[in-house]
Amino acid sequence: MSRIEAKLEAMGLALPEQTVSPGMKLRFKWVRVHGNRAYVSGHGPLNPDGTVAGPLGKVGQEVTPEQAYQSARLVALAVLGSLKRELGDLDRVTAWLRVFGMVNAAPGFNQTPPVINGFSDLIMELYGDEAGTHARSAVGVAALPFNIPVEIEAEVEIKG
Amino acid sequence: MSRIEAKLEAMGLALPEQTVSPGMKLRFKWVRVHGNRAYVSGHGPLNPDGTVAGPLGKVGQEVTPEQAYQSARLVALAVLGSLKRELGDLDRVTAWLRVFGMVNAAPGFNQTPPVINGFSDLIMELYGDEAGTHARSAVGVAALPFNIPVEIEAEVEIKG
Amino acid sequence: MSRIEAKLEAMGLALPEQTVSPGMKLRFKWVRVHGNRAYVSGHGPLNPDGTVAGPLGKVGQEVTPEQAYQSARLVALAVLGSLKRELGDLDRVTAWLRVFGMVNAAPGFNQTPPVINGFSDLIMELYGDEAGTHARSAVGVAALPFNIPVEIEAEVEIKG
Repeated sequence: MSRIEAKLEAMGLALPEQTVSPGMKLRFKWVRVHGNRAYVSGHGPLNPDGTVAGPLGKVGQEVTPEQAYQSARLVALAVLGSLKRELGDLDRVTAWLRVFGMVNAAPGFNQTPPVINGFSDLIMELYGDEAGTHARSAVGVAALPFNIPVEIEAEVEIKG
Repeated sequence: MSRIEAKLEAMGLALPEQTVSPGMKLRFKWVRVHGNRAYVSGHGPLNPDGTVAGPLGKVGQEVTPEQAYQSARLVALAVLGSLKRELGDLDRVTAWLRVFGMVNAAPGFNQTPPVINGFSDLIMELYGDEAGTHARSAVGVAALPFNIPVEIEAEVEIKG
Repeated sequence: MSRIEAKLEAMGLALPEQTVSPGMKLRFKWVRVHGNRAYVSGHGPLNPDGTVAGPLGKVGQEVTPEQAYQSARLVALAVLGSLKRELGDLDRVTAWLRVFGMVNAAPGFNQTPPVINGFSDLIMELYGDEAGTHARSAVGVAALPFNIPVEIEAEVEIKG
């Protein structure tokens, strides 16, 4: 078993199924692999069966910052699930490079970095300080598909 | 004639002139070519003469989702126009990698992926499943220049 | 002294200290260097001592467009400070590639490109037309950390 997947198992974490995106005909790839790069589409939080995971709504209104942190952690698992399906083995990710975190922010809510930490914390724990660290933005956007509280896109380096 | 431009002609589609951006002194490049990458600036929808194409406004309010889909298709043509001016030949684009779609979303509007499909559908039709597919985000932002309904930035691989 | 730092000195500009980010436990790097790329995290405007620089608030409301232009210029200095700490020498930046400018936009404010020019103008002046030019987006977002008026992330090419 790969090193990263062994860690996930030891932590009691499972990767979700591929998202089913009700009503969304998929015109893109969740992960676009090309050369030594994998470009990761904006992902939202998923339940184990691939359906969109709640709570839904704006952070600072329907969703608390603590719930949003957990959503961002689920986004990390969703991204890892997509990477595994595309790469076969999560150990092929050799460096996290860029993480763009988007929070569905209620008016007046701007504590966006602690929310996106839910993603960064898990990636850092799994990949370690050297491979896992990344440049990051964590900003509030006006709307996200399905009214999810968090969406994150990324770019990683991969090996053949 | 290049393969992509022949397809555009067969589809009856023309690329717009370079945008004139009234009141905007251009401090950047619409397409930044470096090595085997072209970084594409955020583009909006253009009329054939390079002026900003309406309808303008927020999607879900002044602009319907169907109109916004058409706007996103015009954005694709604007991006292709900029790529042609910079690269000379659209066949030099060997892989679409990342597409970041931004929708000028009215409060409560979150059906952003179907809007950005207007871009992805045309790129996929022109470049095919292998070169045309891309990682993508489709999110709602608070404001776009000139109150355009859609703006899209991208990264593509190019050959010499 | 490096060429870029000599220019900064001649212009009377100093780079700020590393941001202290009160209340924000840093899970990411301000600049992620890998191979010939440096990925620059979203930066806000800083005072010389690394604290967040005001005025804070939404552009078009608490912050004027002219003030926001100055904020974007401070963001450029903050980014250059982070690049210098990571690279040692700002001359190692051989090409600016992508700049993503985010404006904390008040309802109805969409003059985002002139705001982000505060960043682009300084980068172009320091690095010149060839190395300094970049692809760019300049959009309005719903919220930014600490209620800063401008945040900018970037990607640059570097040499060993």
